[in-house]
Amino acid sequence: MSGKIPADIEIAQSASMKPIQEIAEDIGLSEEYLDLYGKYKAKISLDVLEDFKDKPDGHLILVTAINPTPAGEGKTTTNVGLSMALNRIGKKAITTLREPSLGPCFGVKGGAAGGGYSQVVPMEDINLHFTGDIHAVTTANNLLAALLDNHLHQGNALGIDPRMVVWKRCLDMNDRALRNVVIGLGGKANGVPREDRFDISVASEIMAILCLATDIEDLKERLTRMIVAYNYEGKPVTAGDLEATGALALLLKDAIKPNLVQTLENTPAIIHGGPFANIAHGCNSVVATKVALKLADYVVTEAGFGADLGAEKFFNIKCRFAGLKPSAAVIVASVRALKNHGGVKKKDLAVENLEALEKGFGNLEKQIENITKFGVPVVVAVNRFPTDTERELRMVEEKCSDLEVKAVLSEVWAKGSEGGTDLAREVVRLAENNEGSRFKFLYDPGESIRDKIEKIAREIYGADGVEFTSKAEKDIKLYEKLGLDSMPVCMAKTQYSLSDNPKLLGRPTGFKITVREIRVSAGAGFLVVLTGDVMTMPGLPKIPAATRMNIDKKGSIEGLF
Amino acid sequence: MSGKIPADIEIAQSASMKPIQEIAEDIGLSEEYLDLYGKYKAKISLDVLEDFKDKPDGHLILVTAINPTPAGEGKTTTNVGLSMALNRIGKKAITTLREPSLGPCFGVKGGAAGGGYSQVVPMEDINLHFTGDIHAVTTANNLLAALLDNHLHQGNALGIDPRMVVWKRCLDMNDRALRNVVIGLGGKANGVPREDRFDISVASEIMAILCLATDIEDLKERLTRMIVAYNYEGKPVTAGDLEATGALALLLKDAIKPNLVQTLENTPAIIHGGPFANIAHGCNSVVATKVALKLADYVVTEAGFGADLGAEKFFNIKCRFAGLKPSAAVIVASVRALKNHGGVKKKDLAVENLEALEKGFGNLEKQIENITKFGVPVVVAVNRFPTDTERELRMVEEKCSDLEVKAVLSEVWAKGSEGGTDLAREVVRLAENNEGSRFKFLYDPGESIRDKIEKIAREIYGADGVEFTSKAEKDIKLYEKLGLDSMPVCMAKTQYSLSDNPKLLGRPTGFKITVREIRVSAGAGFLVVLTGDVMTMPGLPKIPAATRMNIDKKGSIEGLF
Repeated sequence: MSGKIPADIEIAQSASMKPIQEIAEDIGLSEEYLDLYGKYKAKISLDVLEDFKDKPDGHLILVTAINPTPAGEGKTTTNVGLSMALNRIGKKAITTLREPSLGPCFGVKGGAAGGGYSQVVPMEDINLHFTGDIHAVTTANNLLAALLDNHLHQGNALGIDPRMVVWKRCLDMNDRALRNVVIGLGGKANGVPREDRFDISVASEIMAILCLATDIEDLKERLTRMIVAYNYEGKPVTAGDLEATGALALLLKDAIKPNLVQTLENTPAIIHGGPFANIAHGCNSVVATKVALKLADYVVTEAGFGADLGAEKFFNIKCRFAGLKPSAAVIVASVRALKNHGGVKKKDLAVENLEALEKGFGNLEKQIENITKFGVPVVVAVNRFPTDTERELRMVEEKCSDLEVKAVLSEVWAKGSEGGTDLAREVVRLAENNEGSRFKFLYDPGESIRDKIEKIAREIYGADGVEFTSKAEKDIKLYEKLGLDSMPVCMAKTQYSLSDNPKLLGRPTGFKITVREIRVSAGAGFLVVLTGDVMTMPGLPKIPAATRMNIDKKGSIEGLF
Repeated sequence: MSGKIPADIEIAQSASMKPIQEIAEDIGLSEEYLDLYGKYKAKISLDVLEDFKDKPDGHLILVTAINPTPAGEGKTTTNVGLSMALNRIGKKAITTLREPSLGPCFGVKGGAAGGGYSQVVPMEDINLHFTGDIHAVTTANNLLAALLDNHLHQGNALGIDPRMVVWKRCLDMNDRALRNVVIGLGGKANGVPREDRFDISVASEIMAILCLATDIEDLKERLTRMIVAYNYEGKPVTAGDLEATGALALLLKDAIKPNLVQTLENTPAIIHGGPFANIAHGCNSVVATKVALKLADYVVTEAGFGADLGAEKFFNIKCRFAGLKPSAAVIVASVRALKNHGGVKKKDLAVENLEALEKGFGNLEKQIENITKFGVPVVVAVNRFPTDTERELRMVEEKCSDLEVKAVLSEVWAKGSEGGTDLAREVVRLAENNEGSRFKFLYDPGESIRDKIEKIAREIYGADGVEFTSKAEKDIKLYEKLGLDSMPVCMAKTQYSLSDNPKLLGRPTGFKITVREIRVSAGAGFLVVLTGDVMTMPGLPKIPAATRMNIDKKGSIEGLF
């Protein structure tokens, strides 16, 4: 099957796109709400929220997954395919996705806009610069850093301790050489020497804020609260103290508007914001989701990584801040990935192995339980691969059925919407039966930092408990003292395992979670809990995807996929 | 007079803009040539060059100036005003400008889009991100840097000497703390430690290339040739050697298209590219100028700094590479600035002082001579200030008349096009009398590096000669050995004086120029000759303009001007 499907970029470039005004019209948006960016991209005015406020919201559907494996699950592909399939069966549906970062695009991935016949287009624009949102975040982030170092240089009236600067510079790039740097060298005219680091832009707190802010005023309040450093007395110094708020908000004035594009089947897609899923919450923007809910019957959205990390943060952070109530969730799995969770190596995944599948199924089982704990009904989308055997597929179906969850085959990669109609029908059934939603949070932000973390570790990860390093203990004391302890927690953990050890696949038991450090994102409004080495600046591989890219004089592009 | 004129941003925000499609239509461009960026900005397809190739070019008018002083000359304002005035007297005219950099905008300037009633709009967009061109340059520059450091990290097959890396990272920011940094710290996983520096993005060779490339193919050839480092044998390593060309060109695929906006009087403006005027040639892009020449009778363009630096590089570099023949040049001067050149301090400039004016006039006289050496007819635009006396204005007029040059009062700042019709008429007279242009270059690129520099120093700056430091001598030997000596030279010199000493105002004599160092921009195609400290990363002032900026929930903006 997969052998006959052309490469993603070939499919994307042969797509017959409609002018973006037509896509907008289909969801009731006249041109006055649009700022066009070329013929196939537009920013949507936030006036929609006010002008459509009496219109009831559509259903919010979360697409999440088992813990990712090298075998591939196809979460974005399923998201896009499901939204097309919902449209195919007569529902107005919008897919909402995160904006891809340039770093991974030039590194290993070469692009991120779905795959096969379930992609968003124009894929080359979406993957490169898009409408400039990430560049705006980079610029705002680095303006704040420049203002801070300028403050140190010009007399340091706020008494900032240069050893206690927590604000980092950033670039939308995979660039390991910038992870640890010393700046301000070269003598008095060139600033105050200090250690610094660069993160990838999507790891900037400003990206998290952009994705949680509900309007310009909320954006400004959040920007003002960001802690950039501590002074010699150990008190926080904020972006507001540096008088940076206005300029940062000005730089983000267009970035806060959601971006409208289309799928390969000319259905609407809103792609906006892309916070890193490890040190931030990993969902597209609140305004994008809210705008989409006003314009569609069904909004299909996503959260980074597996359900233990992505869905938990989607529910406890994004839904909490935005007052959203999801109607249903889709967990994407594949036979190959489940066999990998059951101990099969990548090279052997094409061979039928019911024993490994049964063992690996534990991972899916736990993720189903996790979603259920939030009171959200679930369907499993089995992303079909050509090597799946009938017996394997039947086993997944039966074991899901034992859990009173339907497992539906998804073939949206190979067939587009046609391959997703069963999934779409089950999603509709779940959503329509879920009127008067029983959606609930896992914890109350007022609980102690320890309690919030313990609850997530035990109930979602299945851990026996949590160990806090002395650094983490110190951090907890500091935030309690500063009154910053009543915020949701944003877990940073390996995405590959339910535990904090990436090698423990399937459904591990008898483990504890170790919390190494807790950081505060006072503007975003959460505490970042680090449970392992968190990579905030990736590196390039030996042969970067960038070296395979090209454009010729007719504008034909190679190397993006 | 100036007391009654509202602030620039108030004028700009109360402007009545036309949809950009209408502006395009006025110059014969149908919508198929446009990519819209919001309602008032569009990128122009380079297909114009092919489709309109049989249409004769319009007249190219250069706006340049005396050596700048703190008194203000108003070069951009005159450029915009002249183009509006040409339209007013019935000529189809387009102004072509450089894109403003964010760094100075957040530093001292707060914006750069003309002033008073001679501005380009939407000024807040032009000043902030615009259509993303500079961000594309930043990204391409830093991708190349990341690929280079990744190459060092992954085994260094090319044998690059980490002490001989000449490629720098960049940000579109005034950030002195990044002038001298050490990167790659933190152990083996984090790259190879080495010294590095960040330039402001507009100082990147990629910006210079973007502004000289004639199409995607030429762009790629230039990118390939860029020298990023030397290997242990002392041989150059290029961007092509790192296989970066395709990805860089891909990142620049939209940035190479000129941007169409409008003036306050709804006449067309093309703003594209913004290479630093010190280490690069400081003119808007070749493609913008060429596109404009196909669409208008008159194209008014600019070059950075005074005529000794800006016009010389415009003629010898941009016109040479692009095959352009300017029809006339405008030298902008003001009575205040000339008095400053004559030794009057800024606080005393409001007082009539004919003696100082006569002395300071020497600067204007030399700049007139300089333009004349290229065979280009000249008019002087006297940018009128309220404190100018009739006797002062008459003196400038008479002294210009002695040189057989007309000096015309320009009041475009206070009156818009109405204040520039006399100037426009003189420009038309000069251009129409200049059929069969006598335009010529000052030197032949095949001359020796020394001879090219000597010629500029003696004939344009009025120096008695040139001294080369031993570093410069070494550089010359290297480029001769590498066969890189037959390119034009791009002078980097203080803009404040005809000499290389910023304190020598007016028309200094009896001085020599000291060449400290010569760098090569092999992709841009010139040798950069450094005659003093060249600042490629500015710093922020004590109270940055950023701290005065704001945006409220209705989108009203403060602090840009």
